[in-house]
Parts: sequence; structure tokens; C-alpha cells
Amino acid sequence: MSQTITLALDAMGSDAGSGPLVEGAAQLSREDSGLHVVLVGDEVEISEHLAQQRYDASRIAIVHAPESVPMDCKPAEALEASPDCSVLVAARLVRDGHADALVSAGNTGAVILAASKTFQRLPGIRRAALAAVYPTEQRHGPRDDPFALMLDVGATLTCTAEDLVGFAVMGSAYSRIISDIGRPRVALLSNGSEPSKGTPAIVEAHARLLQMQGIEFVGNVEGLDIPRGTVDVVVCEGFLGNVVLKMLEGVSEVVSDLAKDAYARKFLWRLGLTMLSQGMQQIRRMTDWKQYGGAPVLGFDRVVIKAHGRSNARAVRNALKVAAKAVRNDLAGEIRRGME
Amino acid sequence: MSQTITLALDAMGSDAGSGPLVEGAAQLSREDSGLHVVLVGDEVEISEHLAQQRYDASRIAIVHAPESVPMDCKPAEALEASPDCSVLVAARLVRDGHADALVSAGNTGAVILAASKTFQRLPGIRRAALAAVYPTEQRHGPRDDPFALMLDVGATLTCTAEDLVGFAVMGSAYSRIISDIGRPRVALLSNGSEPSKGTPAIVEAHARLLQMQGIEFVGNVEGLDIPRGTVDVVVCEGFLGNVVLKMLEGVSEVVSDLAKDAYARKFLWRLGLTMLSQGMQQIRRMTDWKQYGGAPVLGFDRVVIKAHGRSNARAVRNALKVAAKAVRNDLAGEIRRGME
Repeated sequence: MSQTITLALDAMGSDAGSGPLVEGAAQLSREDSGLHVVLVGDEVEISEHLAQQRYDASRIAIVHAPESVPMDCKPAEALEASPDCSVLVAARLVRDGHADALVSAGNTGAVILAASKTFQRLPGIRRAALAAVYPTEQRHGPRDDPFALMLDVGATLTCTAEDLVGFAVMGSAYSRIISDIGRPRVALLSNGSEPSKGTPAIVEAHARLLQMQGIEFVGNVEGLDIPRGTVDVVVCEGFLGNVVLKMLEGVSEVVSDLAKDAYARKFLWRLGLTMLSQGMQQIRRMTDWKQYGGAPVLGFDRVVIKAHGRSNARAVRNALKVAAKAVRNDLAGEIRRGME
Repeated sequence: MSQTITLALDAMGSDAGSGPLVEGAAQLSREDSGLHVVLVGDEVEISEHLAQQRYDASRIAIVHAPESVPMDCKPAEALEASPDCSVLVAARLVRDGHADALVSAGNTGAVILAASKTFQRLPGIRRAALAAVYPTEQRHGPRDDPFALMLDVGATLTCTAEDLVGFAVMGSAYSRIISDIGRPRVALLSNGSEPSKGTPAIVEAHARLLQMQGIEFVGNVEGLDIPRGTVDVVVCEGFLGNVVLKMLEGVSEVVSDLAKDAYARKFLWRLGLTMLSQGMQQIRRMTDWKQYGGAPVLGFDRVVIKAHGRSNARAVRNALKVAAKAVRNDLAGEIRRGME
């Protein structure tokens, strides 16, 4: 496709400062001729970082934003107090047609709130959802991706059946577009596979999803199925998704601690680990989902990608590319059609 | 202590049949002079298994029950249809003072329902909870146990603040008695550590637990803290606990699959794994909580232990010993005092 896509990148508020964000944008400018990046934030700081990079100046612009949202703030108060913070300025660029998608590595709540203050929710979508990819044993789609999608993982707390149905449609659309899976297998996370299992909202969502033509709904999955990766898209309310996702992160840390501990202890173990390095890498790759770039905020008429707060330049570049792919393939339109 | 304790063991309905249950009871009869076991179930089948074991006949009795509850039944219907099934007969032995505790490796829902039909709920406890130990990185208590307690993991679906407070008190009492932890650290599982985080029920339970003297309430923990084992007792509603526990089981399976896969593939890897065997054992031990015996059903005036459906003889023996320890240390009284 020759269409030029412009991405508004909130260059402030990540854990590692603006450096990796500017570097990721600079890398991308040298690679892909179809993408422009607008870096939004403190002009002086961004310029300084940019001066240290090789980049294609025709594909990078800076828009100054005088304020930014700290990582550990209360989102509602911070956005109220700083109407010209970088994430809001970036969102307005998208709303007003100067850019096609919003990408931020800042405070998650602030990104979701900025989107909901600035963009329109898609028809039939009562609440937005944050989706995340996580590592699985089974592979998915034509590229054998070792991960699946889960939503909501934190934009909501408890959900109605209607919300869960919306999440299923949005997750299916995103998986189709980003992972190129023709008919993604979608399931509700519950405490048993039978249609009668789960909270009333889950039971009702189950019944409704069975009636929908456009979605490959395969029923309920259980906790066991999460690491196995039985399905392509796991749907749950935000509170549960948040706990599950953080738990996977915790498991990853523990496995890595144990490996380090073993490594330090004995020469024979060290030798053993070296011999096993390929296998250990496989385990580590499976448990390190930070490499997979950004998490989409779904439900708005514009594309919003939340990159991890600790993203390095490569992760930022991946998040920008994911955002561009979502724009190119009309994610919002795909969700709209799914909700009809 | 010289007090004789009698345990009613439902000898039917486990995944592996009566064999491991009878064998576990036989082992225990040869070991511990203070414990008697009543095997409840099909007299002929139990006698046949018992004939193959060495055991102390003065410490084992059989009580015939003509029916049993299959693993894959609907508990309410099964108990209705079989009023003399082994789990109900065993529960009645406890209710009527012929035994001090109920132990079963059968259908979990049927065990909880049998208890709730036969026993009294403790004052202030609106709903019973199923608690489970699970493996953690950090150690707990005077014996450095590599596991923590979580409840509820399946007796309830959604919970009120009152229910969660009850679970905290019950989990604290159980941890004190079984793991000998003086003041177990108890936390609510939520989506953030701040007191304002979580569902309304969690926020309210948080506020109430802060006011309680008898319990070491340390606030909220997040998903990350589960595998780390930051606290001794994790409190959550049953739906969430069920998903979390099954997910840990799934992670364990995936790690084990990857290790087997690596093992099969290459001589060098095989050699590496052999050298690493101690480290691998540690990971496997951490992820195999089946060794820790039974899961208590808490909230009744009698001790109820649910052993895993796939328990081997050693696991059955451990579950019986846990039940005896709970009786000896007056678990019900401890919970009663905690609720005052």
C-alpha cells in the first residue's frame, strides 16, 4: 500500500524517559517509507534525543506539549490539571485528522482516559477494553505466533454480558488484522467449560455469542487453557484479566530467579544450563511478552496502542508498526461490522 | 497428645478408585498410634483392597455405604438421588460423633454440599470456602514451607465483603494451625495495592479487615505476588481463585512439557538436564502442589478435608494427618474466636 500513515507518538511519561521512544521512531523512519511519526512532548528534550540518532527528517516531526503525565499519578486528576499534556495533545492530533493513530508508553489509565475524552466510542460498544498478548504453549495463526490475545486486562473492573460480547467482537477483529488469523477462535474465561458455568454475566454472554454469525466462538475456557493457549482470544472482565496477566508476569520472574539461582550455585549446573541454553531461551521467550510490542485500547473510532512503560527502542518501533497495521486494515471498521 | 482421633474417610469416588485411599489409611495405621480411620464405601471392594495391605486392624474400621457419587456428576442431583452415598454416610458419622473429621477425594462440589447439608455453619460465616495451598518462591512459617494458602478457590462464585472477611479469618486460623505460623500475613487479591483498588466488595472488606485486631491484615496484593508468595494467606472470591489455581496448574504442565520436549530432542540437552536435575526438581516441586495433601473446606463446625481426586497413597495419608492436626488444635474453635 502506498497510503502514507502518520502516527502520533506520546514521547513523554514512560519509565525510561523519552530516549527509547525517540530512538524507536528514528529507527522506523530509516526503514519504512510509508510511515510518518509525530513526536509529541517537550520539544527541547525530544530534539536533544533526536540529535543523537540517525533518522530520516522527512518522516519525523515534533509537536510541542508543555506538560506530561507522571507514571504514578491518578489519571483523572492529572488530565484535569494538565489539559495540554503530551498524551492529550497527541490524541487531539488524531481526532483532528493530523495523525491516524495514538501510541503511548505512559500511564495506562491516562492513555485510556485521554482516548475516551477525545475519541468516539464505536456503535454498540459501551466500554473500551485494553487487550494484551501473552505467551502460550500452542502456536497461533499462519505465522505460528507463540502468543494469544486476552481482553479486558484493565480498562474495566466488572462487566455486563453486553460488555463481554463487545470484547469478543473487538478481540476477534484485532486478532484477524494483527495476527492474520482468518477466523480467530474466541472463548470466555470461566470456572468450567459448560455453558452454565460462571457468573450470570458470563452465562448470558455465552448464550448471546453462540447466536452470532461473524465470530468463531468456541465456548468457555478455564485457567488451565491460558498458558496452553487453547484459543486465539480469551475474553474476561478487566479485574480478572489484570490479576491473570500480572500473575503470568510473576511466574516469569520466579522462573527467571530460579534459573539465576541455579546458575550461580554450581559449576555443573552452569555447564548444564549452557547446554540447555536453547531450551531455556524457549522458556524465557514464552514468558517474556514485552517483545510483542503494544497493547491495543479497543472500542474507539481511532487506533490507540499502549506500549509497555519499560519499552526499549525495538518495542516502541514494534508498537508503531502494529498501530500502522491496524490503521491500514481499518480496525475500527472491522469492529463496526462485527457489532452489526 | 494422647487423645484418640477418628477420621471418616470417604473411600469411593476418587479418580484412581479405592486403592490409594485404602493404602493411605493402611500406611497411617502402621505409623501413628493416635489415629483411627473409618473407611466408608463399598464393603466388598474396600475389604479386597485392604487384604492386600499390611495394616493395624485395631486402627481401621469399615462402614458400608451402598452408593457413591461419580466424579463427573452434578452434585445436587447426585446427593438427592443417593442419600446413602459414601460421602454423606461419612459426613453423618462425623455429625453424630462417631468420627472427628471428614476426608474425601471425591467430587469437590459433592463434598462441599454434603458438608453443608450435614454440618452447621460457624457463627458469622455466611458461606463456606475451599482453601488450597499452592507453591511460592518465598518460604513461609517456622518450617520454611514453599507454599501459601489461597481461599476461596471454588466453593463460591462472587462474594460480598462479609464473605471475604470470613475467608480472611478462616484462612488465618487454618494457616496458624496447620503451618504453625504465629501471625499469618493475610491479604486481599486485587488489581492494585491501594485500599481503593478492586471491586466494591474488596474495597469494603479491606476497610473492615483494617479494623480487626486478631488478624495480621497487610492490605491488597496483586497477581505478581501470587507466585512470589509475598503473604501467607491470599483471599479472593471463588471464581477468581478457581481461575488462578487452574492457571498455576496449567503453567506447571507447560513447564513440564517443555522440559520433556527438550529431553527428547538432543543428547546434549539430555546431558544438560541431568546436570540440572536438582534445579529442575526444585521447579517441579514448586509447581506440583499435589504433594501437599488436602484442601480444607472451611466454615463448618466440623473439620472437612478434600484430597485431590488423583491422590496417591502418600497424598491420602497426608490429608488424613492434616485433618487430625486440625481436630487436635480445634480449628472450628479458632475460627469461632476469630469471628468474635
